[in-house]
Amino acid sequence: MKLYDFHLAPNPRRVRIFLAEKGIEVPTVEINTREAGQFDSAFEKVNPDRTIPVLELDDGTCISETVAICRYFEEIRPEPPLMGVDARDKAVVEMWSRRCELQGFQSIGEAARNSLPMFADRGLAGMPDGVPQIPALAERGRAAATRFCAKLDAQLAGNEFVAGPRFTIADITAFVMFGFATRIDFAVPEDCANIRRWYDLVAARPSADA
Amino acid sequence: MKLYDFHLAPNPRRVRIFLAEKGIEVPTVEINTREAGQFDSAFEKVNPDRTIPVLELDDGTCISETVAICRYFEEIRPEPPLMGVDARDKAVVEMWSRRCELQGFQSIGEAARNSLPMFADRGLAGMPDGVPQIPALAERGRAAATRFCAKLDAQLAGNEFVAGPRFTIADITAFVMFGFATRIDFAVPEDCANIRRWYDLVAARPSADA
Repeated sequence: MKLYDFHLAPNPRRVRIFLAEKGIEVPTVEINTREAGQFDSAFEKVNPDRTIPVLELDDGTCISETVAICRYFEEIRPEPPLMGVDARDKAVVEMWSRRCELQGFQSIGEAARNSLPMFADRGLAGMPDGVPQIPALAERGRAAATRFCAKLDAQLAGNEFVAGPRFTIADITAFVMFGFATRIDFAVPEDCANIRRWYDLVAARPSADA
Repeated sequence: MKLYDFHLAPNPRRVRIFLAEKGIEVPTVEINTREAGQFDSAFEKVNPDRTIPVLELDDGTCISETVAICRYFEEIRPEPPLMGVDARDKAVVEMWSRRCELQGFQSIGEAARNSLPMFADRGLAGMPDGVPQIPALAERGRAAATRFCAKLDAQLAGNEFVAGPRFTIADITAFVMFGFATRIDFAVPEDCANIRRWYDLVAARPSADA
């Protein structure tokens, strides 16, 4: 088994934190996306989407998509549970995991992809060129991320972690989102005291260094 | 238990097909999003994201997000399995489910949201106004959906269904995507014979009428 990883990229970091929480070590292969390593023809056979992370199993199966990789490890090493403990809880965790990803992480990603010079003509992941940045989308992403923070702050007013009393994959996604967001100078909004309380709690976990 | 539904909306249809495949019947409450029903203050308490579908459990817990709702039913009624059968298969199904959703369904959604007159000033789901359409994003979404079709066609060349030999949630997402795509006159590309073979197979299942 090996994990195609890059130490500076946010999605692989989600997997690394997940693995650290599970106490699992997996050999890694560094794909330097700052040097277009994901566009090498050898890597295209690993993942035609030309994104990282990818988990290659011993039988040669390649699993792309961060949450799919996490799902694999949740199945083979259920403890500690990071994706819920019963039907209701699994649904709540998946709901919050998706809210964090689709409304938060993805909005920050849109803002970054459509504004940072390093992504010029690469407005979508996995495309080496030919996708012009859309400035209006960068602005829209930033506004959407701000709205998401208000919802997240309200949720954290009554819950220790994003999806309730336990640390889950939803916390990982939100935490990595805020780290990634610093690249576009997006910080936790001033009025979101609950997010700041939660952020410090998550940042203090050993897995945050992964 | 009740499902907040709307018979014309694509995401609730994904849940209805999932339920039909499981043989589960759930009472529904119609939220007419063509008449802004999702923006009623009563519904905002059900789902602050103001989107459908939402599953309300008997204990009052409200689950939004299509895949989170499906996860709940997969847990309480495992047969037939629609989200994978073992660790490897669950990861493969989740990978393809996410590819269909993030590269296919979401791209069509972007194209529709940013071009159809019914979504004027409502470029993002859950926002009653204040989100101008971005024509360049509509165009980008359409191009991304076309690229996704090429990948899906390649996958279906060697597999009966999207994620392998079994019908899964990935088929549901892709199938509903093509139905939704007709609203922007996006059809299966001419050169995608494998998608057409698969589409007819899925359309012939009784659940397709759900």
